Parts: sequence; C-alpha cells; structure tokens
Amino acid sequence: MKRHLSDDMCPRYERAVQILGKRWTPLIVRVLLPRPRRFRDMTSIIGGLSDRLLSERLKELEACGIVERRVYPDTPVRIEYILTEKGLELEHVVEAIQHWADLWEPAAVEA
Amino acid sequence: MKRHLSDDMCPRYERAVQILGKRWTPLIVRVLLPRPRRFRDMTSIIGGLSDRLLSERLKELEACGIVERRVYPDTPVRIEYILTEKGLELEHVVEAIQHWADLWEPAAVEA
Repeated sequence: MKRHLSDDMCPRYERAVQILGKRWTPLIVRVLLPRPRRFRDMTSIIGGLSDRLLSERLKELEACGIVERRVYPDTPVRIEYILTEKGLELEHVVEAIQHWADLWEPAAVEA
Repeated sequence: MKRHLSDDMCPRYERAVQILGKRWTPLIVRVLLPRPRRFRDMTSIIGGLSDRLLSERLKELEACGIVERRVYPDTPVRIEYILTEKGLELEHVVEAIQHWADLWEPAAVEA
C-alpha cells in the first residue's frame, strides 16, 4: 500500500490530521460511529472529557461537516449528535487505529 | 466494519490516539513510511516543524517503540530514523487518513 503515499507531504493529509489529531476528537468520532448520541451520553462514555471541551469539539466538527446537531421537538426537547456522510467515512480511520491498538498496545495496562 | 467497535470506549484505542494524535506525529510517521530519513530530511519535508519539536517527537516515538534511531559509523557519522515493525504497521492508519482526506478535503485549498 505504500505505493500510494507520495514522498512529499500532502496538504490534504496535513489538514485532515489537523482536524482529527485534536485531543478528544478521535474519541468523539468513535463514540458517534455506532449511533447518534446525546451530549450527556458522550461525556459519560468518554472519561475525563469536560462539558466545555466536548461542546468546543462538537462545534469544530460541525464546522468541518463531520457532525450534525439534530434537534427533535419532543418534550423536553431532544438534541442528538450524528455523523454526516463525511463523518461516517472516518470509520476506516477509527478501525485502522483500533486494529493497530489491538495488535500493539499491551492488554496488561487495561487491568 | 462497525460491528468490531464496542459501544464503550476502549482503553487501547485511547492510548493509541494519545500517541498518534500529538501535533506533528502523524506527519512524522507518514514521512518515515517510504524509507528511513535523516533529521534534516524530515524538517525539510514537514513545513513549519522546528528542530526542537521534531527531536521531542522522535524521542517519544522511540520510547513507544515506533521509531528506531540508527547510527552509522561513516565519516561524518550518519544518523537515520527508521520505523520499527510496530511503526510500519501504522501504514494502514496513514493510508486510511490519506484516503479520507483525498475524498473529503477540498483540492482548491491546495492551489
């Protein structure tokens, strides 16, 4: 697969890792992959993520067209965050990281 | 592929993105994928990366077993950085990001 990688740096790749490499962002994307989530679901799944930072990251991801915020007129109003098509295609990135982590990150630390 | 992702956060995934998500790291790994590189090659390919930060990142990547520093007793001495087996397997992560970037990052910005 290495043949696809040019020898120089690629500006698109640089921009992609600028978005995806932000702290918490790869965790937020992973949590949204299986299904839409409420704000509260995300902070409870991602340990240590503050409301302020989640809110900041979600706004960035909305601005990049990766996440969509959906408001349902229930009582009380229900707000969910969902990956767009662009966001859903990050599945392959998340899967590749997960696969690498499963191979190379020692399980012992999890105990 | 989503079936492989557990609904909870995975500690291995968290540790992997902690390493890979650091600023410059995904660029350094990408630059080392095709071949070993000297320090100077890397700073010239990765625009904006300072000597201090490259040196810091390389030390981190060595500590994680992703990069190996090789010293050849030439005159003058030649030092190269090379991906280990663990580092080479990040190829799939880099490829997945590149593929996503090619699909979703607008080419226009490159001009």
